[in-house]
Amino acid sequence: MNHERTEISTLGEFGLIDHLTKNNEIKNASTIVSVGDDAAVLDHLGKQIVVTTDMLVEGIHFDMMYTPLKHLGYKSVIVNLSDVYAMNAMPQQITMSIAFSNRFSVEALDEFYEGVYAACNRYNVDLIGGDTTSSQKGFIISVTAIGEVAPDKFVKRSGAKINDLICVSGDLGAAFLGLTILEREKKIFLETKGVQPNLENQDYIIGRFLKPEARKDIIEFFATNEIIPTSMIDISDGLSSELLHICRQSEKGCVLYEEKIPVNDMARQFAYKLEIDPTACALSGGEDYELLFTINQKDYDKIVAKSDITVVGHITEKDAGALLITKGGNKHKLTAQGWNAFV
Amino acid sequence: MNHERTEISTLGEFGLIDHLTKNNEIKNASTIVSVGDDAAVLDHLGKQIVVTTDMLVEGIHFDMMYTPLKHLGYKSVIVNLSDVYAMNAMPQQITMSIAFSNRFSVEALDEFYEGVYAACNRYNVDLIGGDTTSSQKGFIISVTAIGEVAPDKFVKRSGAKINDLICVSGDLGAAFLGLTILEREKKIFLETKGVQPNLENQDYIIGRFLKPEARKDIIEFFATNEIIPTSMIDISDGLSSELLHICRQSEKGCVLYEEKIPVNDMARQFAYKLEIDPTACALSGGEDYELLFTINQKDYDKIVAKSDITVVGHITEKDAGALLITKGGNKHKLTAQGWNAFV
Repeated sequence: MNHERTEISTLGEFGLIDHLTKNNEIKNASTIVSVGDDAAVLDHLGKQIVVTTDMLVEGIHFDMMYTPLKHLGYKSVIVNLSDVYAMNAMPQQITMSIAFSNRFSVEALDEFYEGVYAACNRYNVDLIGGDTTSSQKGFIISVTAIGEVAPDKFVKRSGAKINDLICVSGDLGAAFLGLTILEREKKIFLETKGVQPNLENQDYIIGRFLKPEARKDIIEFFATNEIIPTSMIDISDGLSSELLHICRQSEKGCVLYEEKIPVNDMARQFAYKLEIDPTACALSGGEDYELLFTINQKDYDKIVAKSDITVVGHITEKDAGALLITKGGNKHKLTAQGWNAFV
Repeated sequence: MNHERTEISTLGEFGLIDHLTKNNEIKNASTIVSVGDDAAVLDHLGKQIVVTTDMLVEGIHFDMMYTPLKHLGYKSVIVNLSDVYAMNAMPQQITMSIAFSNRFSVEALDEFYEGVYAACNRYNVDLIGGDTTSSQKGFIISVTAIGEVAPDKFVKRSGAKINDLICVSGDLGAAFLGLTILEREKKIFLETKGVQPNLENQDYIIGRFLKPEARKDIIEFFATNEIIPTSMIDISDGLSSELLHICRQSEKGCVLYEEKIPVNDMARQFAYKLEIDPTACALSGGEDYELLFTINQKDYDKIVAKSDITVVGHITEKDAGALLITKGGNKHKLTAQGWNAFV
């Protein structure tokens, strides 16, 4: 933590950009011209490219009270890379634009960019441009990520076929529990000033919320094992909402088995302690940034040995609807209760 | 003007996206997958691509008191296309992300997107993605534009050579005068409620500010006439600031002749009426979105007949510095006084 405070105005816009990009290194051959001109120039040499963008707004998407700036920078990149992986593509470049009020110092932006560069380094992505400007209130982040994919090897949400297996990577619901504990401690802190937060050694679930990772390894696993999912989406709004997207865009139904949904043991125990249903966290919690995908049954042998991929159900015909089979054997209609920025 | 008011919350996030993109048509073969998946998929078939992004913030970059939403949508696209043209590339796609407070209705967003689509249609650009979310305050816009260019035909800021001619498209300074009159009338309106604004029939200068165009025609002229500028930049911060970028990045000096700087006659007369120096408007006013470029002298014959391109000076060696020769024959050092978002 840096306790100096340098006002942004002492650098000016161009000085600030120079400062924030002085250690920016190009890692990919596809980046021909990076920061410093009217636009960046890229050459993906016969590959198709995928483009995704997200805007994150303080007070709507993140709370500065419990979000360290470095984590915020890291996560801002990750959520966009996750969308690129969800197309079966490999991210190559990002642009990063930020607007911030005058309560932010150069040191604060340095912390934020430390996280941005850490994510770029870990995922081998080049920061090729962006914008820095003032805001009237709060911190606003807009990231665009660009990835490449061999021609026509991209995977959409709309390709699921009847009898395809529905799979998820990793475990679900922990990020929501991490958010829950941070919100609880914030409330206690605000009501009783001076009380230190009690995070109950829940590093795993808090880490899942504050510093998620994107599943580059799963896309690499697909390539190595010559698997092309029939459909794929990343889980940002909860399993229910994402699976319903796949069903709707593929014009299919599905059966999802509650007992198959992967939930981390620590997360499950903590959910019971808070008297929250762990399955509900997985279905509707969101922010897990795992991948949800469907594969043809012939590919089952290729994924069965992979501990980090779980088959949670299968695709059915459209008229059968989207069903959840509970542990007790009851059938429920699957409903989207994902996160909504406009509530 | 639509006087109904539909709350955004009645549509929800996905409903809003469906509503705003329902008339979105794909115009370019390079757009393989557009809005509706984790990411868009593009294939520029052997071309290199250029990427640029800008963030526009209410109260910093625009004032809702005198900026119609349709114009704002149009201009948000134009300022990014202008950066693509400034690389000698043709824009193909944009993403558009917006954050807005609950004072905005569905009808207000419709007006904004009317302008966005008008610009996309005029410049033959596809809207391929974006994000819509809430803000705590005001309207925030982030656009990323993607263009294509034949391999290695892009033009950077850094290629100007000694004795190259310095050229500008169109005329300069009018947008700043347009802003000046709008700010003046806003002030009078706020001080004397009910007084109707007196825009003095200054449609040209007000239009230059509120609804600028990007110089697609100049890039097409270069292609037709086999001209590749040695350096290029778009004029968003004023001629001085942009020419200094070219000099700094090309490691050269320049001589700029005040008498050559193209200023529209109506703009010039209006500047004198306001007792502002028209040259100062051109040098430091900004927001003209004209192109500033340098060409080899051998290309002079190709541009001399083009009424919309003016030679304003030439490139010199670095040690000679960046000089302005006034109408009276005096030499001044050129200084950047462009617009600064952090003042």
